[in-house]
Amino acid sequence: MKITVLGAGLVGSVICRDLATESDFNIKVVDLNQEVLAKLRDAASVETVQADLKQPGTLAAEITDSDLVVCAVPGFMGFETLKGIIEAGKNVVDISFFSEDPFQLDDLARTKGVTAVIDCGVAPGLSNIILGHVNELLDETESFICYVGGLPTVRHWPYEFKTVFSPWDVLEEYTRPSRFIEYGKEVVLPALSEVELIDFPNVGTLEAFNTDGLRSLGKTMKIPFMKEKTLRYPGYANLMSIFRQGGFFDTEPVDVGGQPVSPMALTSKLLFDQWKLKEGEEDFTVMQVIIEGRLGGKKFRYTYDLLDRYDRLTRTTAMARTTGYTCTIVARQVLSSMFSRPGVCPPEYVGCEADCYDHLIKGYQARNIHLTRTILELE
Amino acid sequence: MKITVLGAGLVGSVICRDLATESDFNIKVVDLNQEVLAKLRDAASVETVQADLKQPGTLAAEITDSDLVVCAVPGFMGFETLKGIIEAGKNVVDISFFSEDPFQLDDLARTKGVTAVIDCGVAPGLSNIILGHVNELLDETESFICYVGGLPTVRHWPYEFKTVFSPWDVLEEYTRPSRFIEYGKEVVLPALSEVELIDFPNVGTLEAFNTDGLRSLGKTMKIPFMKEKTLRYPGYANLMSIFRQGGFFDTEPVDVGGQPVSPMALTSKLLFDQWKLKEGEEDFTVMQVIIEGRLGGKKFRYTYDLLDRYDRLTRTTAMARTTGYTCTIVARQVLSSMFSRPGVCPPEYVGCEADCYDHLIKGYQARNIHLTRTILELE
Repeated sequence: MKITVLGAGLVGSVICRDLATESDFNIKVVDLNQEVLAKLRDAASVETVQADLKQPGTLAAEITDSDLVVCAVPGFMGFETLKGIIEAGKNVVDISFFSEDPFQLDDLARTKGVTAVIDCGVAPGLSNIILGHVNELLDETESFICYVGGLPTVRHWPYEFKTVFSPWDVLEEYTRPSRFIEYGKEVVLPALSEVELIDFPNVGTLEAFNTDGLRSLGKTMKIPFMKEKTLRYPGYANLMSIFRQGGFFDTEPVDVGGQPVSPMALTSKLLFDQWKLKEGEEDFTVMQVIIEGRLGGKKFRYTYDLLDRYDRLTRTTAMARTTGYTCTIVARQVLSSMFSRPGVCPPEYVGCEADCYDHLIKGYQARNIHLTRTILELE
Repeated sequence: MKITVLGAGLVGSVICRDLATESDFNIKVVDLNQEVLAKLRDAASVETVQADLKQPGTLAAEITDSDLVVCAVPGFMGFETLKGIIEAGKNVVDISFFSEDPFQLDDLARTKGVTAVIDCGVAPGLSNIILGHVNELLDETESFICYVGGLPTVRHWPYEFKTVFSPWDVLEEYTRPSRFIEYGKEVVLPALSEVELIDFPNVGTLEAFNTDGLRSLGKTMKIPFMKEKTLRYPGYANLMSIFRQGGFFDTEPVDVGGQPVSPMALTSKLLFDQWKLKEGEEDFTVMQVIIEGRLGGKKFRYTYDLLDRYDRLTRTTAMARTTGYTCTIVARQVLSSMFSRPGVCPPEYVGCEADCYDHLIKGYQARNIHLTRTILELE
């Protein structure tokens, strides 16, 4: 089976290494950066191609003989790349987390007979899969909340935050209004709002605040209460609110000594070094999904807890592990036709299918990712 | 008597209005800004001259027939302007608060027979005068601490701070190391360090932190413990520390999308509007000076408290009142030769002279500025 992975970044390279362990997979990885490709060649049995996927014709040429495409390009080029993959008639699993509406490509995917699983990371990704799964189990799902964060193990003042993503993309989450569902209606509040403190075992106290994280769930699930909140070390939301209020996240240029400067561009630049998760720096991913609903006349609460840590043996971040392995496990399901629903498929569609869900959980266990489930009867 | 006031800014204009109340004073005020001059002409009987004091010859021409000069120019041009005034052989009271060492001009002033009182505001200014006064009363002065702040009455999140000065000058105080005296030796700590909370009657809880405020006192007074701390609403020092740590106060340009940008220049620009004390916005000045020492074998603590508020009748800020009136009262002392010490004279020299001190206190009372003194016998 031929698999083409587009993007050899932090998550893309973990995806390649995982897929390359299968003897009957032939992995080709395409990236613009020769350095990351060289590193990947040393670590795994993969074919590497240096190419610019934004150049016309390149994408189609690189995936023409693929049985499956994994799309791990940066968000800003995600939508166009996914569109090109679907146009080429290739099944695809995508983790580019682009901001455009993926369902714009649904008709095209159906016409082409393509299965296109999007947002297939941890959250979005696993969180959607869990909701899809539990929603099938219950007679009626009443509420869903997802708390999720990726954090450095060692905390450095003042941000106590590191990321593998571009600071600009992260900061954008703190200015975009956060949408969620209450009493069946869409509610909009500012990002960073409704800060609450939550204790997590083996982690300690974190704070949770609103971000715009529901994505496809707002369209695909008819559940009266749905919300996603981001987790950080306490104090972070207030600090980011101050930067936002102070104008440091404004994209509109201001005059600085005669030259126009975007405050956001400078802020992002200053944060870049301080927020960068450096080689060998350890992180963890923590997620808690709480779903309540009714089954056989009784009310239940399903709580799913994930705590994944940096893997010292393979020097792999928890962020890359939880995102990348969700993607590679689902990629196997698409390749084997275990998951074969045509069209644009957010991960909740994967979770709906019991065999896919079970296969995912087994795949996680094999990779030492542990998801615990607690069921409480409420009334 | 002819007095020339250089600078018709917020404090300069209050100085002019105060001096113009005396029938035997002829006041001339020089500024580059026609608008502030016009406003001042409407408010007081003064002659106004629009001129650029940085142009060669302008200063000397404008002060040639003056009996006294008041220097209220911006800090960056303070030293050069003061030097020009002394070279012209004119007595001067200065509130430009420049960063250069004023004692460089001491020999010149003595040669010219000039009395040049510098730093003649509230702190530096009144705080020095108080120390000079108490130091004369005591056999031995052991410690001096000055807490001082100018704050808006109405607090707006997140800064809860307004100023009549340039944000750049204010921010510079948060990066410059703060020097103070402990056990007779100079100690250097970062600005914003040693935050403590202090309750002030009718004000509430403020925080005090180290800034580099001793200025001349480090040279003129042989007292084993001396310190100045700045007062702000609680949380402010931490916020400024975060900006400093985050690189937002760095003056060295960073590359932002190909163009070099000084983070400090952008930060100062963003803060400018948010920190500006707007017309009619009320402020207060709060100062507490605590001096301990020995007299007749006993130990005493002298505590001086000042709380001055915005004057609604004349729409004058407390910052301009406390700074400007200290200057105008001392200006009268120099004019009348009540204070006639030749050379560069920091305000502690004025405070040393009992009649000057008494005259200052009476002048404050006439202007509704109340300084209370509490003496406690410690042992």
